[in-house]
Order: sequence, then structure tokens, then C-alpha cells
Amino acid sequence: MSNGLPDQTVSDVGEHALIKRIQKRVAPSFPSVILGIGDDAAVIEPKRGTVSVITTDTLVEGLHFDRSWTPMNAIGHKALAVSLSDLAAMGATPSHVLLSLALPDTILVREVDDIVDGLLSLAARYKTALVGGNITGSKEDLHIEVTAVGNVKRRRILRRTGAQPGDDLYVTGEVGSAAAGLASLRTPPTGDSSGAGIRDCQHRYLCPEPQVRLGNQLGKNRAARSCIDLSDGLADAVRQLTEAEYLGARIHAESIPLSSGARRWFESCGLDPIIAAITGGEDYELLFTAPPNMQRRVAVARKLSGKLPVTCIGTITKNPSSVLIRNGKEEALPHGYQHLRTKP
Amino acid sequence: MSNGLPDQTVSDVGEHALIKRIQKRVAPSFPSVILGIGDDAAVIEPKRGTVSVITTDTLVEGLHFDRSWTPMNAIGHKALAVSLSDLAAMGATPSHVLLSLALPDTILVREVDDIVDGLLSLAARYKTALVGGNITGSKEDLHIEVTAVGNVKRRRILRRTGAQPGDDLYVTGEVGSAAAGLASLRTPPTGDSSGAGIRDCQHRYLCPEPQVRLGNQLGKNRAARSCIDLSDGLADAVRQLTEAEYLGARIHAESIPLSSGARRWFESCGLDPIIAAITGGEDYELLFTAPPNMQRRVAVARKLSGKLPVTCIGTITKNPSSVLIRNGKEEALPHGYQHLRTKP
Repeated sequence: MSNGLPDQTVSDVGEHALIKRIQKRVAPSFPSVILGIGDDAAVIEPKRGTVSVITTDTLVEGLHFDRSWTPMNAIGHKALAVSLSDLAAMGATPSHVLLSLALPDTILVREVDDIVDGLLSLAARYKTALVGGNITGSKEDLHIEVTAVGNVKRRRILRRTGAQPGDDLYVTGEVGSAAAGLASLRTPPTGDSSGAGIRDCQHRYLCPEPQVRLGNQLGKNRAARSCIDLSDGLADAVRQLTEAEYLGARIHAESIPLSSGARRWFESCGLDPIIAAITGGEDYELLFTAPPNMQRRVAVARKLSGKLPVTCIGTITKNPSSVLIRNGKEEALPHGYQHLRTKP
Repeated sequence: MSNGLPDQTVSDVGEHALIKRIQKRVAPSFPSVILGIGDDAAVIEPKRGTVSVITTDTLVEGLHFDRSWTPMNAIGHKALAVSLSDLAAMGATPSHVLLSLALPDTILVREVDDIVDGLLSLAARYKTALVGGNITGSKEDLHIEVTAVGNVKRRRILRRTGAQPGDDLYVTGEVGSAAAGLASLRTPPTGDSSGAGIRDCQHRYLCPEPQVRLGNQLGKNRAARSCIDLSDGLADAVRQLTEAEYLGARIHAESIPLSSGARRWFESCGLDPIIAAITGGEDYELLFTAPPNMQRRVAVARKLSGKLPVTCIGTITKNPSSVLIRNGKEEALPHGYQHLRTKP
């Protein structure tokens, strides 16, 4: 770099210089951006014939990430991935994003660059424009908030509600990898972090890939009756999806897609791999339901979105007590992770 | 209340219960809300023939407010007011809002109720619907972020750019009241907080009123060539508005609208009232420019928005060095408050 700015702290340079720096990193404007970074607010053109979908999520240092072992660009990537995953669960196509940073004084300008670059590189893959946000100080912890805006045709919205008894229950990708990855990054590791596959779990924890394409295709093909993302774990997602309709689910433990890396990690920690995988959060996969006669549509949606693994893990039941079936025996489905809840 | 929930802490009840509680407080749905609180994201219908305006702002405990002397409902009010002020500065009409809370474990459910009620009561006055948001923990400090969405006809957008030499420079309301109010709330007070008018300053600091109606009317009547809000003080706003066009301004000190309460407070602290008023932030008034031949339109916009005080405080100049004129003498316009900047 030609000047010393990147090595300075954010309090050396101040809010205005940081905003100008972010503005410069943003790709040339998209046609739907009428006014981007630099005014009192962003102005965007809604896509004709669609409705707007909007979501916001915050990552808090010490709760959602640890700066000592999380690269700054991974933090930027993940802050956006979490919001794009919410849009995916609605069947929406992302279009615009706002980035809000609450920065402790000691953060380096270079570190802010890295956060922004991590976010912009994921945004570029989904043709999503960074159009604004906010920068403020924070007394101790770094907070990163992303608001993502997308669009969807009104009839193609995927909702949490809508599941019906008899629906098949599907999940994308693998579950538990993020939880295993996170546990193995923490020091000292509580299990065997030399095992094959744990690197992949760590990557899935640090840089999750939102399932935007599949969410889109499920909406377009009208292949799902209800949908939610897995931010707080599979068990929590099953509960939210079923409780929205006062229903339950029967989940087949042996169908749950665990990566070998995650399974090995949980076993090396002395944990029940299935329970650990479905109660651990941050997988950012999609959970959706479809009646058995829509299997073909699910297959088409899957094919059109890059043949992502999609696994049927059980069925929706009229009985509101969700159960896990293992070796022919039923056990209650555990509760997932819940933010803020520190007491049982 | 019939149960003990309000006296419990947020970590006693957890995220899901808090979300349900907020959902219950929200007014019956607006026609433009297709899906509100409770799904992965909110779905809203953009207003036909308009473009969307979107902004986000964060209030951080210890930096933007002190819980020991700020009522929780004032925090909720202000978090929204700040974002509505940004929409006002674009000429936009607010429509939807997301609320994001990062809550320390010890916050009471009742306190969250108060924050939400403060926000909802201001939102109701502007027919703005709370449609979603996020709740997470925070290690120490309460962070409140509001994302506000509005709409405006494309040709009526007010921008920061567009000022021209010779334009008159106008400001709404009074400046410096919020800074005086804040200083008088801090303990121990550094000046005379028994003086008349200081209560009004404190109210303006705690519960600022965003100038949404005037912003709207300025856009509709095409009465302003450029506009910005005063979040970081008048001096900062003048610099941002003029620097966007490589211009300057001549400000007449005696024209600057100071309330008698603010003037008295600053004098009792031994400060220059003009300098203290224009460098102090959080007034959330609008600063705008209009050519002298548009005086009539400015008067119409003012009349249609409730006869808010609007004062001409100077003119835009080709010379990029902004000056303050006092007793016939010129002095350099001071710099305003800048977030994060802790060094000169």
C-alpha cells in the first residue's frame, strides 16, 4: 500500500475516511442502485412484479466469533451468509445489502478492509450490491450487522407455515459440521482435531454457503410447502416448522446427513454424534417439507441448483410430539440452541 | 401483569419468548405487510410508482446513551427517530422498520417491552410497521439497531449533492439543544441545569422528532436542491453538503437558531454558545439549500408541514472554505463531531 492508513486504527482515521474507503471497494454500480453509499440513505429500485424480502442479522464478538481464531474476511463473509440464508429460506433472490459496523477503537483499518472484502466477495457471487450501512464505535466488542434485501414473486414465497401431516421432511447438505468445526477451533480442543474431515467442518463453520439457489428453485418449482433455515440447528428448525402448524415430526436418525469429519469429532469428544449434530447451530442449510407426490419437483429443483445433497429425514405428523427414531425406538427430539437462554 | 415475565431477565426467557412478546405488541397488520415478525425474513409490498429508500443506524450503550439516566422507551423512540431522520433527508415517506437488539443477559423483559413501546409509539405516528428484526446477546453493552424502509417518487429524491453557488442555506428547528440537553443530563452537570429551557433541551436530546413531513414536502414541492440531516451537528452537515460539490458556505452566526435554554446552558459552562451549538450533534434537524428564487416554494413546503421553524442561515459559495461571519468578521467554520475519531 502506498500510505500507512491500513496499519492505523479506526480511531486514527475516523468514520468519514472509513466510509470513503468502503465506497472505493464497492464494485461499479448495478442498474437497480439509484443512490449507494454516501448519502443519508440508499435508494434502490424494487424489481417489477415482485415483493421485497428483508432480513437483518448481527454477529457479536465473543458470542458468534472469536477474533483470535477467526480471520476478519471470514467474519465479513459469514455476516452476509447468515442473512442470505434467511432470504434463501423465503425463496427470494438477494439484491441489495447494508453493512453496519460497531468498531472498538483498536481495530485496524486493514481489518475493516478484510471484513468488507469478505462480504463483497460473497455478495459478488450473488450479484448483490452493498448500498449503505452505518459505522459507529463500540466500547469493547465488535458487532457486525447485515441487512439484506431480496425479491420474490408473491406466489413463490416460501414460509415457515404450511407443513401438513404426511409431508416428507427434507434437509440440504450436512448437519453438525459447523458445530464440530467450531468446537475444534476453540482452544484447548476438547476432541481429536487431527482427524480427517475436521478442516472441512471448520471451513463450513467459518464460511458457510447460503443455499440461495435451491431456495429459489424450490419457490419457482412450487416444490416445498414450508421452509426454514437451520441457523439454530436441525432440532430447533424442526420444532419451529412443526409448531407453526401445531404438528410434529418423526425423524429417522440414520437418515440424518452427518459428515464423517463431524461424526468422528463428536465421537472423539465422547458425545452422541446425532444429538450433538442436530442441536448444534450455524449449519445454514434449508429444512423444507413437501408431500410425497411432489418428490419429482424436489428432484428438479435440486438438479437446477447444482445437485446439492438433499436428504429426506422423516415425515410430518399430526401428533405434535416430535420424535427421533433410532434402532426402531422412539426418543423425544431434543431442543436446539436458543439465543440468550442461559437457563434450562 | 398477570405473570412474572416482565420482572425476569432476558436470559430467563430466551429469544423465542421475547420475539413472541414483541409480535403481540405490534399493531394489526398494514396492507403492505405480506409477512411480518416470525418468519425467516419479512415480506413487504413496495409502493407502486416509487423507489425504495433504506437506512440503518445503531445506538450503542455508553456511547449514544447511558442507561442510568435514559428511560428505556426514550432509547426505543430515538433508535427509530435517527433512521426516520435519514429518510426525511431523502424526501422519503417511512413505511417499514426492522428492530435489532443485542441484549446483555441482565436486561429485564420489562425493559425490552419499554424499548419496543417507545419505538412503536413513534412508528404509529408515521404509519410505519415493525415487520422484523433480530435478537441476540451482547457481552456487556446494549446495542439497538433500526433499519427503516421508505418510499419516494424517483424525481422527488432529495440528495446531499446538488447545492449550487448562490443557493440559500436553510436549517429547520433549533440547533444545539440536544448537545445542551445531553451535557445537562450527565452527572455531575458542568453547567447550570436549573435554568429555564433546559428541560426542553433534555427532551430534544432524549426524544428527537424526525422532520419527516418537511422532508416530504420539500421533495414534493421541489423546493430544495440538496438536503442532509444534522445527526452530527450543523458544522459537520454544512461541510458534508458543500464538500459533496467542492463548494463552501458563508454562515451568519446571528442567524443560527439557538434556543434560549441551550444558549444559557452553554454560557453557564463558559462555552461560546454558537460554536458549542454547531459542533454538538444529535439535533436531527434538516439542512437544505434552495436558490433565492425558490423562497416561495420553501414557504409552501413549510406551511404544509405544520409551520415548523425554518431559518435561512447563509449562502453557498464557490470558494470551498466555509466561514462563520460574526460581528462583520470571518472565522473558519469549525469541524463537527465525527464518530470513532478520538484524535484531532
